[in-house]
Amino acid sequence: MIERYKDKKLADIFSDENKLRLWQDSELAMLLARVQIGEIDEKDYEEIKESLESHKIDINWWLQKDKEIHHDLNAFLEERIRFIPENLQFWFHKGLTSYDTEEPAFATMLKHATQVVKLRVIKLKKILKEMAKKHRYTVMMARTHGQEAEIQSFGKRCLSWLQDLQTDFLSLHAAELNLRYSKMSGAIGNYGSLDPKLEKKALNILGFEPYYGATQIVPRELFVPLAQSLSQIVSTLDKISVAIRLGARSGLKLYQEPFSKKQKGSSAMPHKKNTIRGEQQEGMDRMAKGYLRMIVDNIMTWEERAIEQSCVERVAWPDLFHVTVRSLDNMTRILGRLVVFPDNMLREIVNLKGCYASSHCKKFLKENGFEVEEAYRIVQLASFNAFDVPKKQKKQSFQYADEILSKERDLEKEKTVSIREIIQYGLLHHSPELDISKGKIKEWNNSLRELFSVSSRAQEWEKLFLPSYLLRNEKYLYEKILK
Amino acid sequence: MIERYKDKKLADIFSDENKLRLWQDSELAMLLARVQIGEIDEKDYEEIKESLESHKIDINWWLQKDKEIHHDLNAFLEERIRFIPENLQFWFHKGLTSYDTEEPAFATMLKHATQVVKLRVIKLKKILKEMAKKHRYTVMMARTHGQEAEIQSFGKRCLSWLQDLQTDFLSLHAAELNLRYSKMSGAIGNYGSLDPKLEKKALNILGFEPYYGATQIVPRELFVPLAQSLSQIVSTLDKISVAIRLGARSGLKLYQEPFSKKQKGSSAMPHKKNTIRGEQQEGMDRMAKGYLRMIVDNIMTWEERAIEQSCVERVAWPDLFHVTVRSLDNMTRILGRLVVFPDNMLREIVNLKGCYASSHCKKFLKENGFEVEEAYRIVQLASFNAFDVPKKQKKQSFQYADEILSKERDLEKEKTVSIREIIQYGLLHHSPELDISKGKIKEWNNSLRELFSVSSRAQEWEKLFLPSYLLRNEKYLYEKILK
Amino acid sequence: MIERYKDKKLADIFSDENKLRLWQDSELAMLLARVQIGEIDEKDYEEIKESLESHKIDINWWLQKDKEIHHDLNAFLEERIRFIPENLQFWFHKGLTSYDTEEPAFATMLKHATQVVKLRVIKLKKILKEMAKKHRYTVMMARTHGQEAEIQSFGKRCLSWLQDLQTDFLSLHAAELNLRYSKMSGAIGNYGSLDPKLEKKALNILGFEPYYGATQIVPRELFVPLAQSLSQIVSTLDKISVAIRLGARSGLKLYQEPFSKKQKGSSAMPHKKNTIRGEQQEGMDRMAKGYLRMIVDNIMTWEERAIEQSCVERVAWPDLFHVTVRSLDNMTRILGRLVVFPDNMLREIVNLKGCYASSHCKKFLKENGFEVEEAYRIVQLASFNAFDVPKKQKKQSFQYADEILSKERDLEKEKTVSIREIIQYGLLHHSPELDISKGKIKEWNNSLRELFSVSSRAQEWEKLFLPSYLLRNEKYLYEKILK
Amino acid sequence: MIERYKDKKLADIFSDENKLRLWQDSELAMLLARVQIGEIDEKDYEEIKESLESHKIDINWWLQKDKEIHHDLNAFLEERIRFIPENLQFWFHKGLTSYDTEEPAFATMLKHATQVVKLRVIKLKKILKEMAKKHRYTVMMARTHGQEAEIQSFGKRCLSWLQDLQTDFLSLHAAELNLRYSKMSGAIGNYGSLDPKLEKKALNILGFEPYYGATQIVPRELFVPLAQSLSQIVSTLDKISVAIRLGARSGLKLYQEPFSKKQKGSSAMPHKKNTIRGEQQEGMDRMAKGYLRMIVDNIMTWEERAIEQSCVERVAWPDLFHVTVRSLDNMTRILGRLVVFPDNMLREIVNLKGCYASSHCKKFLKENGFEVEEAYRIVQLASFNAFDVPKKQKKQSFQYADEILSKERDLEKEKTVSIREIIQYGLLHHSPELDISKGKIKEWNNSLRELFSVSSRAQEWEKLFLPSYLLRNEKYLYEKILK
Repeated sequence: MIERYKDKKLADIFSDENKLRLWQDSELAMLLARVQIGEIDEKDYEEIKESLESHKIDINWWLQKDKEIHHDLNAFLEERIRFIPENLQFWFHKGLTSYDTEEPAFATMLKHATQVVKLRVIKLKKILKEMAKKHRYTVMMARTHGQEAEIQSFGKRCLSWLQDLQTDFLSLHAAELNLRYSKMSGAIGNYGSLDPKLEKKALNILGFEPYYGATQIVPRELFVPLAQSLSQIVSTLDKISVAIRLGARSGLKLYQEPFSKKQKGSSAMPHKKNTIRGEQQEGMDRMAKGYLRMIVDNIMTWEERAIEQSCVERVAWPDLFHVTVRSLDNMTRILGRLVVFPDNMLREIVNLKGCYASSHCKKFLKENGFEVEEAYRIVQLASFNAFDVPKKQKKQSFQYADEILSKERDLEKEKTVSIREIIQYGLLHHSPELDISKGKIKEWNNSLRELFSVSSRAQEWEKLFLPSYLLRNEKYLYEKILK
Repeated sequence: MIERYKDKKLADIFSDENKLRLWQDSELAMLLARVQIGEIDEKDYEEIKESLESHKIDINWWLQKDKEIHHDLNAFLEERIRFIPENLQFWFHKGLTSYDTEEPAFATMLKHATQVVKLRVIKLKKILKEMAKKHRYTVMMARTHGQEAEIQSFGKRCLSWLQDLQTDFLSLHAAELNLRYSKMSGAIGNYGSLDPKLEKKALNILGFEPYYGATQIVPRELFVPLAQSLSQIVSTLDKISVAIRLGARSGLKLYQEPFSKKQKGSSAMPHKKNTIRGEQQEGMDRMAKGYLRMIVDNIMTWEERAIEQSCVERVAWPDLFHVTVRSLDNMTRILGRLVVFPDNMLREIVNLKGCYASSHCKKFLKENGFEVEEAYRIVQLASFNAFDVPKKQKKQSFQYADEILSKERDLEKEKTVSIREIIQYGLLHHSPELDISKGKIKEWNNSLRELFSVSSRAQEWEKLFLPSYLLRNEKYLYEKILK
Repeated sequence: MIERYKDKKLADIFSDENKLRLWQDSELAMLLARVQIGEIDEKDYEEIKESLESHKIDINWWLQKDKEIHHDLNAFLEERIRFIPENLQFWFHKGLTSYDTEEPAFATMLKHATQVVKLRVIKLKKILKEMAKKHRYTVMMARTHGQEAEIQSFGKRCLSWLQDLQTDFLSLHAAELNLRYSKMSGAIGNYGSLDPKLEKKALNILGFEPYYGATQIVPRELFVPLAQSLSQIVSTLDKISVAIRLGARSGLKLYQEPFSKKQKGSSAMPHKKNTIRGEQQEGMDRMAKGYLRMIVDNIMTWEERAIEQSCVERVAWPDLFHVTVRSLDNMTRILGRLVVFPDNMLREIVNLKGCYASSHCKKFLKENGFEVEEAYRIVQLASFNAFDVPKKQKKQSFQYADEILSKERDLEKEKTVSIREIIQYGLLHHSPELDISKGKIKEWNNSLRELFSVSSRAQEWEKLFLPSYLLRNEKYLYEKILK
Repeated sequence: MIERYKDKKLADIFSDENKLRLWQDSELAMLLARVQIGEIDEKDYEEIKESLESHKIDINWWLQKDKEIHHDLNAFLEERIRFIPENLQFWFHKGLTSYDTEEPAFATMLKHATQVVKLRVIKLKKILKEMAKKHRYTVMMARTHGQEAEIQSFGKRCLSWLQDLQTDFLSLHAAELNLRYSKMSGAIGNYGSLDPKLEKKALNILGFEPYYGATQIVPRELFVPLAQSLSQIVSTLDKISVAIRLGARSGLKLYQEPFSKKQKGSSAMPHKKNTIRGEQQEGMDRMAKGYLRMIVDNIMTWEERAIEQSCVERVAWPDLFHVTVRSLDNMTRILGRLVVFPDNMLREIVNLKGCYASSHCKKFLKENGFEVEEAYRIVQLASFNAFDVPKKQKKQSFQYADEILSKERDLEKEKTVSIREIIQYGLLHHSPELDISKGKIKEWNNSLRELFSVSSRAQEWEKLFLPSYLLRNEKYLYEKILK
């Protein structure tokens, strides 16, 4: 991953230094296994171990040799064997093929990197939990199709995000189970030069179980779910990020990315507070999916293996992990320090003129004698009435706009009557957007006026618009999710 | 493509009936070529032609035979040869391999389907042109990073969309050039059983040039740019669609998808006018990219060909074309009947309190003696001042929201002072969001008051906020693009 | 999916008829839940149920209505409510949003389709098990990098395939667990119009648990692992298929796709037996990955949902399942009736001139006093010696080839001496491919002759080339995998 | 790109150093444009230019500042402005938005990197041309479906590869045309602070034309065809590479990747010569397609732009170019030094027992009185007869294999009779693979014997099997392609 997006921990895990150290671990584990079945003297093993561990692996020597013989594992063996007493060299890498050494090392790197991811997911889940609690009573509009739908608490939205991430976390966990397995079963996986007991013992030492049925490598099917679950995390974060970006659109901001005191939003426009981290998150998602594609393609190989997957794994895995961790860090930063504007959330609801309760209004009318279809259309008409937008003919010049903006007077004042009132007082009127006759509307208005003449009904009706009523069941979600 | 998204014209082009008819065209073209070089008597050719054309291809017979012999082209040959006089059967498909018959037919289908796409792109381009003209003076906020940036005309936004589509159209055109080529060069493409002259003549009859260097098939590299350009069109349409959806978010709608008079936005919430077509467009984009992926993978084959590409081409090409045409129809419908709210566009600008001119303000201050960094920070501070949002402590219950919504009174009245005034009258004050000392602010306010005490400056300053000034150069784009 | 690749069972599951029936099940389940909590009389429920079940859903009526109101679920409700007694209509779909009805139906379709897949995977696994047993002692070359490596039984290769598929099966199983969940929690998922108890009861009736934290829909993260595991199955099958295709290459065929007695391999070349099913499998893999991409993209949506995912799900899910089932059927057909040529497998080994035991030879030499590097280079040289290929200067015309082929005499007879003999008798000679001096070679030959002058060593040496020795540990894999 | 796959030239092009230098070029070009329209004194311009060019950009200073203000372009401006005389700072970046500076720089990097690719494609095309000429008369089997089909020269296969690459080259060229365009039209692309003439002049200086219709950025549609054509090159190379790998399979190698004299093929098996570069090519293809996916997704943005594309472009473009160049280098190395075994190619043909002429045989029989279907089935039967493979019952133990391999005697000697003889001498016999009655076969044998009793026919027949006859038309391809 390029410097700009590098994570220290991940970079270390996927470094050449670490890889070669893990290769050495594989070799030593097999030697130790040989001790355990009595093939090698413990003392000889200790001698080899010390001779290797007391000589740091010389990365440059190794790189040089690799260029000469075009085989990185062989180059590693040649680098190491220099330090093993001649009489013991015989045992080193005995009976193994390159991937007997490499597979456990590779799986270990994936395991450690997955651990890095998991810790950051846990941290972000904690933040979301706190947000859910903090905003238990922060009322906002829920939006479906980008349109204001019904009201909810912002805490409830946080709970949904938390559960999405929890779903991903469970996927990650399931995928991680595949990392229990590795192989040390020789050139084509049938123990031609190696006792199966040795594989089991050596892998156990390294923290693995044998994958029975390996060829020269373990099948890449084992690793694809991991890549998929990483990419899934990034996509969920992008979904959250888009929700933030949508709520942070200027006009009536619901929330805002943290903006540091020395930050500049734009080189040209000083007033800007851009959602740059959230937008970067979308780029990260594009990248994650690209790396996923590479890894999915890695399943294919020829017969007992060819090495198509190697270069992909060198690049795609570290980069996919980087993208995942960067995404988690991005969203941890955005969410952990999100600036929330509860008053704007309320203002948005006020501006909706009661439509947030439209489904309740419909139900109320049905319960009070209107037919199903009729109840629907009355509420629809009331809603459209509440938002009549006059379409003025504009002059074909900029002069009109000049005038309005110089005076900075508001445009024609919006009517503030809500559907609560329109329905309650029988104020429905014709809408060019709906195919409803004036006669019908008159009839409806009469029925409505009659209906609400009973004062208990009017009280019941007004209750429909209260958050405390509408959100009465959210406590149930809190109980279930935060239990 | 499933019934719901089927396009009659495309379905016909990719139908079995049409395919088999085109296969017959290939066979007849080769026979005619043989007439032209004197191998066959014209009369014999005519006899074959008539015998074939007077017997409609029996699709069911063909399907049945295909199931038996597992070879659709051979099944076609057997179906056809039934009607050819025995003494002339010898000539039918002579020297050809299956793909000599199929390739020109396949390329013809792609050509015709491309034609369908082009006509609809042209139609949509026309709509965008008209929109650009109609909204030449409809002033709106441009947004970058979802944030209000500077003002523009809505017509200018339409011009950008038009040019994006034009860019795609040129890509499509370049890709279409590859469809000039096809092949009829025998089993492995080296004319083992066929005179090269015959290929040239037969292909010319069918409207093609030979692709020299074909194997048993033409390389699929030829077709990938076409798939890419189709997918690109869909992506551009999705970009436009997202811009529409963003502007159609309830609150202060700038535009709205056409909504039919009997439509229901939601089964539960009668007030909804959802942007369902625009959202479908995003689904179409997801599909297009999936089909693109399939076709990109079709480049690979073994040696002189294997038949991996066949099933993919049966499915992915018709479906990709369908998705493209559906997308064009969607956006033609949305844009062609888009409901635009110019007053809301202006209201949005008014609400921005002058920030739309922030870059001009910065420039003005620089030109009037402020340092570069200082000018930036003054305008930034003024902008942040204009939008101070008080963060109230909420009670931890829904009661506060209940109260506000029952009274339907507005929340604390927003200050309406703009950056024009803040800067002009030296009204800068401390912002917790920026690291600027009170002393510094005081100093700036003094300088600003002094600066604007000169009345000509104040006039110049006020001009900066006028659309007619800010958009003075858009005419240039109109000239260049609509020339 | 197009007719050609249609599966009856899957087509039924994803049919409109089935979908609408499942929608009705959702509605009925909610009504029954209302009975259970005492909201509705059981008798009323029965009346609604009977009135609905006694009137088959009229698909055409529904399609017509959908076109009119642009809302398929509402159209369904209108179709159904026609048959519900007026006094009971009030209860129908009460408090529900469209996706409360659709989500359980959708998840049910995925469940049933997954069941179809699982049964076919189980069938194929059984075939692979039988193949593994049947070919327990069928000796063949394992290949890595397309090159002959060491020997194995063909049964062992089948075991690997079996385990790959088993790995996929476990992934599928893990993914299926997510299908336990669905939602019926109202318009934005916070039970605004619905008691949480009703959701739980209704979902339980339908075989689901509530997904707490849903918005208007359950998050698409739930379904992505399923798509991924389906695509993974197809990729594994493609890997197996490629191994078959590689072994079926003419020359020295190891196996062959079943070829029916009336089949034609090629319209031009009667001698062909093409691996067309295996090649189709690769096409299926390309398709599966395309559909996977579409579904992965479905995670993204806006806030409490927009409907981008809907059209994708209509197309991609049925098609992905079809591609998976087609792949399983393809491979079941290929593997279940695979024609295996054990003699050719042996001939291939013979032709390898002992190189299949090269790692054992190397080890033997190490154990008998040669240095690690030296042992490697001796065996490498012997191997290259065994396959010296003279590069003749060809005349620049086709005449040379004409001659050889007319006489059909074999080309220059290959030497048949193996590395067993070259090493045992000290017959190493210079290879232009390796940088080893003649002096060194002479020295090695002397050492080798001396080494093998001891007859016990020669016997031990010869044992290295025996399958019964080399494959002695495969029994272990059989035990572990077929236990 | 990771160190292992880094290309010096590309790394330089995409380095921070180069990017910042190109940003400076953009700024200077705009200043020079201002000189050209008389806004700035030439002398002032020269002073700015010298002050900037005499102070190397301090990358560390810049990185530090970027971390502070979260805006890399602003950080660059601050770094640079330090060296501009105070009285001239006013002009620097005046009226520009960040992407006015960045876009031309970005397009320039793409242009230069494309140049690097083109030169290497040209080099590879030259190699393929030379190979085509060199192997004009090297006769080999063409394969379709992995099966031997008809004969061709290896030169002809090289011509096909050449044309595939040429097709890609033309795609690349078409895509490159889009790089003519860039933008310097201000914050939202409508010249709010900038005279359109300045954009034109500044871009011309930098080698570009204005893209009219840009928003804050040029639409990413412009760049997608470039990514697609790069990925297409990599896919073509992978197709070639797979053909090499297939021909390099041990057994009867047709060619072989160059293998250096010190190379080790495998750590375990010294005899191996693995096709590791070709396999890496497949990995490169997987990567290229992943990067393509990322860049295709970059089309989407919000309204006048958001910055989702930025991180993707930092990573995917350099990496895609690297993958492309690495692929070209890989294949240049493989093809440029490919070891070809013409004798093995002939041996493969001999082993095919005449089947390579099966389509000619079929045609011959048709011309000599057999019916179409009959001719097909006779040749099919003859071909199957030639390759009868006895299926022996194996003992269920490894003993049989042990025996055969110890004796190293050949297996049952293959019959060497070819279809030339089977048909010519009427030697057809029953095949369990075909549904043809013994009576029918007897009848055919009689007819065939009679047919070939005429000696001129026998001579004509024998000609069908001659390369000089079968490949007579390849000269035509040479003329057309190498003209």
